[in-house]
Amino acid sequence: MQVTRSQISLFLCLLSCASSLGTRYTPDWASLDARPLPEWYDEVKFGIFVHWGVFSVPAFGSEWFWWYWKAAQSPSYIQFMTKNYPPGFSYTDFAPEFHAQFFDPDEWADIFEASGAKYVVLTSKHHEGFTNWGSPTSWNWNSVDNGPHRDLVGDLGAAIRKRSLHYGLYHSLYEWFNPIYLSDKQSGFKTQEFVEKKAMPELYDLVNRYKPDLIWSDGDWEAPDTYWNSTGFLAWLYNDSPVKDVVVTNDRWGLGCYCKHGGYYNCADKFTPGELPNHKWEKCQSVDTISWGYRRNMKLSEVMDLPSIIKDMVYVVALGGNYLLNVGPTSDGMIAPVFEERLRGIGAWLKVNGEAIYATKPWRVQAENATVPVWYTSKSSTVYAIFTSNPMQNSFKLLMPKTSYNTVVTLLGNPEPLKWAPLQTTGLIVLLPDLPFTPADAWTLKLDEVA
Amino acid sequence: MQVTRSQISLFLCLLSCASSLGTRYTPDWASLDARPLPEWYDEVKFGIFVHWGVFSVPAFGSEWFWWYWKAAQSPSYIQFMTKNYPPGFSYTDFAPEFHAQFFDPDEWADIFEASGAKYVVLTSKHHEGFTNWGSPTSWNWNSVDNGPHRDLVGDLGAAIRKRSLHYGLYHSLYEWFNPIYLSDKQSGFKTQEFVEKKAMPELYDLVNRYKPDLIWSDGDWEAPDTYWNSTGFLAWLYNDSPVKDVVVTNDRWGLGCYCKHGGYYNCADKFTPGELPNHKWEKCQSVDTISWGYRRNMKLSEVMDLPSIIKDMVYVVALGGNYLLNVGPTSDGMIAPVFEERLRGIGAWLKVNGEAIYATKPWRVQAENATVPVWYTSKSSTVYAIFTSNPMQNSFKLLMPKTSYNTVVTLLGNPEPLKWAPLQTTGLIVLLPDLPFTPADAWTLKLDEVA
Amino acid sequence: MQVTRSQISLFLCLLSCASSLGTRYTPDWASLDARPLPEWYDEVKFGIFVHWGVFSVPAFGSEWFWWYWKAAQSPSYIQFMTKNYPPGFSYTDFAPEFHAQFFDPDEWADIFEASGAKYVVLTSKHHEGFTNWGSPTSWNWNSVDNGPHRDLVGDLGAAIRKRSLHYGLYHSLYEWFNPIYLSDKQSGFKTQEFVEKKAMPELYDLVNRYKPDLIWSDGDWEAPDTYWNSTGFLAWLYNDSPVKDVVVTNDRWGLGCYCKHGGYYNCADKFTPGELPNHKWEKCQSVDTISWGYRRNMKLSEVMDLPSIIKDMVYVVALGGNYLLNVGPTSDGMIAPVFEERLRGIGAWLKVNGEAIYATKPWRVQAENATVPVWYTSKSSTVYAIFTSNPMQNSFKLLMPKTSYNTVVTLLGNPEPLKWAPLQTTGLIVLLPDLPFTPADAWTLKLDEVA
Amino acid sequence: MQVTRSQISLFLCLLSCASSLGTRYTPDWASLDARPLPEWYDEVKFGIFVHWGVFSVPAFGSEWFWWYWKAAQSPSYIQFMTKNYPPGFSYTDFAPEFHAQFFDPDEWADIFEASGAKYVVLTSKHHEGFTNWGSPTSWNWNSVDNGPHRDLVGDLGAAIRKRSLHYGLYHSLYEWFNPIYLSDKQSGFKTQEFVEKKAMPELYDLVNRYKPDLIWSDGDWEAPDTYWNSTGFLAWLYNDSPVKDVVVTNDRWGLGCYCKHGGYYNCADKFTPGELPNHKWEKCQSVDTISWGYRRNMKLSEVMDLPSIIKDMVYVVALGGNYLLNVGPTSDGMIAPVFEERLRGIGAWLKVNGEAIYATKPWRVQAENATVPVWYTSKSSTVYAIFTSNPMQNSFKLLMPKTSYNTVVTLLGNPEPLKWAPLQTTGLIVLLPDLPFTPADAWTLKLDEVA
Repeated sequence: MQVTRSQISLFLCLLSCASSLGTRYTPDWASLDARPLPEWYDEVKFGIFVHWGVFSVPAFGSEWFWWYWKAAQSPSYIQFMTKNYPPGFSYTDFAPEFHAQFFDPDEWADIFEASGAKYVVLTSKHHEGFTNWGSPTSWNWNSVDNGPHRDLVGDLGAAIRKRSLHYGLYHSLYEWFNPIYLSDKQSGFKTQEFVEKKAMPELYDLVNRYKPDLIWSDGDWEAPDTYWNSTGFLAWLYNDSPVKDVVVTNDRWGLGCYCKHGGYYNCADKFTPGELPNHKWEKCQSVDTISWGYRRNMKLSEVMDLPSIIKDMVYVVALGGNYLLNVGPTSDGMIAPVFEERLRGIGAWLKVNGEAIYATKPWRVQAENATVPVWYTSKSSTVYAIFTSNPMQNSFKLLMPKTSYNTVVTLLGNPEPLKWAPLQTTGLIVLLPDLPFTPADAWTLKLDEVA
Repeated sequence: MQVTRSQISLFLCLLSCASSLGTRYTPDWASLDARPLPEWYDEVKFGIFVHWGVFSVPAFGSEWFWWYWKAAQSPSYIQFMTKNYPPGFSYTDFAPEFHAQFFDPDEWADIFEASGAKYVVLTSKHHEGFTNWGSPTSWNWNSVDNGPHRDLVGDLGAAIRKRSLHYGLYHSLYEWFNPIYLSDKQSGFKTQEFVEKKAMPELYDLVNRYKPDLIWSDGDWEAPDTYWNSTGFLAWLYNDSPVKDVVVTNDRWGLGCYCKHGGYYNCADKFTPGELPNHKWEKCQSVDTISWGYRRNMKLSEVMDLPSIIKDMVYVVALGGNYLLNVGPTSDGMIAPVFEERLRGIGAWLKVNGEAIYATKPWRVQAENATVPVWYTSKSSTVYAIFTSNPMQNSFKLLMPKTSYNTVVTLLGNPEPLKWAPLQTTGLIVLLPDLPFTPADAWTLKLDEVA
Repeated sequence: MQVTRSQISLFLCLLSCASSLGTRYTPDWASLDARPLPEWYDEVKFGIFVHWGVFSVPAFGSEWFWWYWKAAQSPSYIQFMTKNYPPGFSYTDFAPEFHAQFFDPDEWADIFEASGAKYVVLTSKHHEGFTNWGSPTSWNWNSVDNGPHRDLVGDLGAAIRKRSLHYGLYHSLYEWFNPIYLSDKQSGFKTQEFVEKKAMPELYDLVNRYKPDLIWSDGDWEAPDTYWNSTGFLAWLYNDSPVKDVVVTNDRWGLGCYCKHGGYYNCADKFTPGELPNHKWEKCQSVDTISWGYRRNMKLSEVMDLPSIIKDMVYVVALGGNYLLNVGPTSDGMIAPVFEERLRGIGAWLKVNGEAIYATKPWRVQAENATVPVWYTSKSSTVYAIFTSNPMQNSFKLLMPKTSYNTVVTLLGNPEPLKWAPLQTTGLIVLLPDLPFTPADAWTLKLDEVA
Repeated sequence: MQVTRSQISLFLCLLSCASSLGTRYTPDWASLDARPLPEWYDEVKFGIFVHWGVFSVPAFGSEWFWWYWKAAQSPSYIQFMTKNYPPGFSYTDFAPEFHAQFFDPDEWADIFEASGAKYVVLTSKHHEGFTNWGSPTSWNWNSVDNGPHRDLVGDLGAAIRKRSLHYGLYHSLYEWFNPIYLSDKQSGFKTQEFVEKKAMPELYDLVNRYKPDLIWSDGDWEAPDTYWNSTGFLAWLYNDSPVKDVVVTNDRWGLGCYCKHGGYYNCADKFTPGELPNHKWEKCQSVDTISWGYRRNMKLSEVMDLPSIIKDMVYVVALGGNYLLNVGPTSDGMIAPVFEERLRGIGAWLKVNGEAIYATKPWRVQAENATVPVWYTSKSSTVYAIFTSNPMQNSFKLLMPKTSYNTVVTLLGNPEPLKWAPLQTTGLIVLLPDLPFTPADAWTLKLDEVA
């Protein structure tokens, strides 16, 4: 007998969202914040973020290209345009060049799956307002009417789901240059035309059409959540939407919301807490350290190497977070080979070390630094000590675990249990074998039956 | 002392729209239809229609290019696209090529003024939905965000008004492919989202920004006026808008409206009544007989020659209509020389014969055909007999006018009064001089003091 | 029995180029200049000049666009480029936009035939060096490899010949920016690489492939004919080429040649002699007075009107010249309607007055001005007096013709002979009928049996 | 005192090309083949090959794009064009899109230098005929008139030489679609117009302008060297050219030449001999295994990984060859990060192991396979044993070296000499330390004083 996705959803629901069966959420933070986070999210740990849009055409500087060029009037962007385009060229003129002619959603999904990621989040609409699906309220400024002439959100979603990965959608509430938004802003956000005509219709449309497992809200910060009607949307999402039982959201729902309200917390971009937070969180990070969108003039020195990525992911998971790693595809529809190499590198590492990541919980101690820096994760009485630099010696000290007679220590990827000896009250010393080569430069000691 | 436009408006108002001072129009046809037509409109007789938009870029077939291509799937349009554009090319991809780089509104206005026209009507938005001004509800599908990056409606308006011509705006209610419109249509026009979010906001915006003297409504025919909220708009337009005293409208305000409700009547395109109508009307006609928008592959045989235009105008004015003659500018912003030649040719003819056109009224008889076909217009006791073919003889018979001792007959453009003799009970015979050359092939006999 | 073209050629040859049967031309001016001009050329009087090339794409300013922009650095051209194109845009980048998608050689040929012209001269290669045929020595800079991807020279030629018009080819010897030419120039024209590798191979190729009836040489003036090997080419052309018996050439074969050597004389562009020259000549003139190539921003005031063209042609023919009237097609492949109108207008006038033009000879007097200016042409004892302004009176005096009892005077287009009376020793007075309308504003009196 | 490049050249000359001081080469293979190869070439071992041209714009399939599309009519290329470009689109239309806007020759040169390569060979002109410098005989089909509007050959050369790397130029003799070449070919290569007008002028121009250290000839195979005048060119190159003392050439100088005549041997592309050849040779290999030019849809699985590259280079050097590794830059002017990563990876490996590569000679034995496969190189009495897989054990046997009392064995990158013991008559067993991590997966044992 095969268990279907919907059966699993139901089961999860019976376990965790019992309250939702009986009760309904009300459109206020007290009620909404009380909703338990669907369990799948904490278990998957690692996802892929995909920034794709008209900004992938100039592919210069940043996915904030339009804003830097026209709002900030950044000299480097102005110079880039002056040097390479005719005087009257506008941002909308990039859209016809968003061809996506090589876009094969199955190839992308294969790469994402090979990375070991368990969820994928695509920008359905970034701050430029261009929708990657045929939104009826974004006529002639969307991927079906323009450029690719294709439902990018739908096509990628289908491929992602064939591989049993979770599918999330990034959605920017605000649109930098939408005149209706600007008019609301002008009014001090006393009018809500933009929310009623654009932001909310599109969010509802996204949920109803694509049934995303995750909504990654963004672009909220200029206006309070009361302007955005965020609580109203979330109440519907949790009570009545087709994804009410599985959907996860983040915390960007209005000025002052982040790190405070919503589902899990993103807080600021690339935010990393110093110690274990008391709320589920996620760190998003881009392989290209300069930009979330593709840049044609990206250099190797600006690209994270594999050890840095693994180190970052391990730190995040040890502190209870999820790690959402971004790649920006080209306007042609390709994942650059250097990104593909990073993603496959992570996957190779996770193939050996994944049990120290997926479905783990933070341990009572997050890190220590006796021999080399070590990060801890755990699953009931098993503790994982992950170290991201080669100790260059055979004896390895861990001060925090409390061993017992039954304690077994292994190096993940190594068949034989390792020799070890307890240290005074707590801690142990382990005799390491030769460390297997890994370009990720990180290894895991698994300690069964420790406390 | 100089009389300003607004003083003239006030004066006109005192004379003609007295009712509007005391009473207000209610949003129903009975009330709205009772509004007297502002007098300027009947006096000017001759206007220029300008079709300009994204359709001026393919400039092939017709300004209905998009519709023929995608809705009708006309083979010639499909073949044109297949042969000249890449497979994924969409209509929106034409917009960046709408450069308007040679557009000089003053040059256009000079040509229009030289034609003798007294009003100019520009397509502010055709059925394609592309607005020729920076409409906030047509973001990224308008002439400021796209292509020309310029306020075409405003720029032309300023030049037109410098020359004391009246400025009118064509506006299409429906938009062929606007998904919000299509969704309303799908509902059998039970929903009105498109009207509320797009059509009406834009009409109000046009009136408030540009204060047009004339609204040339179009694209109404798929839905009843109740869907369009036409009466609501017109009541506001007549009662409270900044142009309430001078604005003229036509009759395309919903299925079944034309030839029945609104201001003057257009009825169908190029409609020409067989006899004197009892309501003010206008005939619109295009110099390019095939298309209202510019066509790059236009041939001379498809272009009206000057005599046909003059004949058409004379017929229309004799039957009490206004004549709105269309030219389609290029996407570069030029009026093609062949159009300029026609317009200047009309102006040359009107310089001599204009008094038989401007501010005239239909006579008790519209036409007769004793010697050659003759069309009548009148001003109190003066009657104009216009003939549009050379009689090739010196004696010219008119059967309808009743002469008196005081009757004086002149050929417009000829200094001396002509010899004439009465015929039996009514009618007269006139001794023509050699007719002056005119490429328009039309001349006017002016009869003072006839009945 | 039908007489074929080649039979006609043979016949012409028997009559006029008898010398060529016995003798051969030597490559020096004394010999070449002695060749009789093939008779067809003087008989046809009127031809159409067609300037088409990559310059038709910017279609701004002049067909010398490249030169004004890059060599003269004319501010208006620089500004045009700066305003409308990206910084790195080069002249070669225009070539892909030379689409010629509407080019129908039969439509062009129909218009040219309808104009009454008897020969058509196309720019096979202008100073830009772009060849309108697939020249093997102009790889990737010709109409087959680039832009139209079509043999324009061949395709137009076929259509022209179907209508029994003569086909001539314009060919520029020099190429402004060809580095091989520039290197020869640098050497003070001591090296001749350009002539050997480019100019001459292409001229021979043109003659052998397309068998032109006329070679309209140009671009000769920077170097002496000895550099160009002109006499060598002409000797071959007259002795051995496939068109040796019918081909006509002009006089632009090297610095100092024009008005002195070669076939007929063009002298400078638009050159018009003050009195009857003693050598066959041709005036070339452009309908667009500003440019020989198409200009997108052409205005009506810059376009010759029909009366000016007729006046110009009549003057030229009266002085023994041919009249070569130019139109510049669009890069789309269309003859603009305003040009078509001029050409058809000329044809309409020639239909009535053609016998005063075709196959005529200058008379012993070229012009006089008793009543209005009059130009004379003749055929044996018949004299044609052409007047290009309406005398506005019935009596018309001609002072120069000597009448006899047998003299008959008619107005071309008028069925009946006119009344006339001799004046003293020479001259006559004619009683004109009402002049028929003609937009050309020109009429012809035919005088049979005068001296 | 600083030694200049030219002094070094002179010195090299005194040592090795003594014959050239006294004698001159005659234009025949016997003489030319006898010229000693300038010594620098064998010493440098490793170079970078750069394929850049108009083919970098479609960047699809292969740098043979034009040929596959138009000559072979390969379905995948035809489909690519049909799907993404308008029907009339030609290969020349790609040239305007060759922008090279991000091209910074110093950045490229930094990457090449960091790779440890000692020479760089750029395609000055590939089979498409487009010259990457302003060749006067390739007017309007070169990188100065078109696309980049820049002297790519000169600009890269300057940056390469600032870093004391050698600069070579690839040059294709034939041009697939050049009509002059095709005409020679048609004649069975009895005419030599193409060689005289295009191929040879360009080769001489390249040498005189850019003074390349190496000429990488190609595209020779359809015609014999007598057609190409190869021996004439080489005699000039070796006797009188500005690079006569330093220049190195390969063996592609006409049908039947390769592996037989010229300088070093390339033989076929990617040719790898099975045993030590008796003539200096070079293997060229592309990081992208599918194409030498950039491909936009390149996937990671098609890209060589670092160990494969190192293995390939080691094999080649052990067999006496040079290794020329290719990367194809983008039309924007960037080296893709995945290529940059490979190049920097090679450099990192060479920093440790370079002394086993540079300036080595093949040893008396090239390879053996006792513990794992080992490749040998040597410098007088020092022998390098390079192994490209991890033996996963501490004892390492080498059977071929003959040790002595003075023999010292070290692992490159490891400070301490290793313990070793002789085996029977020849060979030794070495006690390996833990191998240092290297993504190249290759290490070198250095054996001093062995035979």
